[in-house]
Amino acid sequence: MTDKFPEDVKFLYIAYTPAKADITACGIPIPLDFDKEFRDKTVVIVAIPGAFTPTCTANHIPPFVEKFTALKSAGVDAVIVLSANDPFVQSAFGKALGVTDEAFIFASDPGAEFSKSAGLSLDLPPAFGTRTARYAIIVSNGVVKYVEKDSEGVAGSGVDAVLAAL
Amino acid sequence: MTDKFPEDVKFLYIAYTPAKADITACGIPIPLDFDKEFRDKTVVIVAIPGAFTPTCTANHIPPFVEKFTALKSAGVDAVIVLSANDPFVQSAFGKALGVTDEAFIFASDPGAEFSKSAGLSLDLPPAFGTRTARYAIIVSNGVVKYVEKDSEGVAGSGVDAVLAAL
Repeated sequence: MTDKFPEDVKFLYIAYTPAKADITACGIPIPLDFDKEFRDKTVVIVAIPGAFTPTCTANHIPPFVEKFTALKSAGVDAVIVLSANDPFVQSAFGKALGVTDEAFIFASDPGAEFSKSAGLSLDLPPAFGTRTARYAIIVSNGVVKYVEKDSEGVAGSGVDAVLAAL
Repeated sequence: MTDKFPEDVKFLYIAYTPAKADITACGIPIPLDFDKEFRDKTVVIVAIPGAFTPTCTANHIPPFVEKFTALKSAGVDAVIVLSANDPFVQSAFGKALGVTDEAFIFASDPGAEFSKSAGLSLDLPPAFGTRTARYAIIVSNGVVKYVEKDSEGVAGSGVDAVLAAL
């Protein structure tokens, strides 16, 4: 991945709203234009192979939720949890983890296109298809400061590694 | 679709267990061999384009949950809610809808392969890919008694239509 974060990256997400807080209340997906939203910000993208799957649900994303305050104190403006699941599933996953902060976003990388373009995708059996690998990226003012992909565990893509890199 | 239900149909699912009742507790996916499990049974397959999407979550699957007793009284041995989402997402969707009955199964049609073979799939934009269409099938002792696909609403694939066809 080059130092400059690509300018045409668009994810899909459903913004959390208290009116649709219940996990069975479905919002409407909208585009998340990374450059437009975060050009002069510091953002952590943490990608997972699947919402509601064991590692992601047990010991990868919850620590990011727990240490979100520490991340913000270290200068992070937003965290984006990314997967190739669709935005309805990602929205439900965020609600299942109890996340209500609008700066902690659960977004879809449609068809894992962005992850594929960055060499950070996984081809899995038909029930899963092409997925985002497990990785973390720190982007600050459009510049990539950190990229780590994990094939096992979360040593490079977990919150402690990200905090250490900030 | 021919009258005889195909014999080699295998879905993937995570069986509900009280030990993993929480939506963030992930079970392990196992195959659901339709012929082996249901050869001499009456089963309703209700397929949806996506777990946690508006129509499916609001007014298609909940009525099946509410009228499950009526379905059983009409001779149904099991209901299978099917989508092309992976089994972890389908398992979470069942928990989100409060389903704990082992005869009410949330399964994955990997890559929508079965639905495609029956002419009952949908090609959607990249965030969704190929999905199962919205349909209901009643299979009794390996024979297809009812097949209805809905492109809008749930007139043919909703629980009332299925109850009327039993």
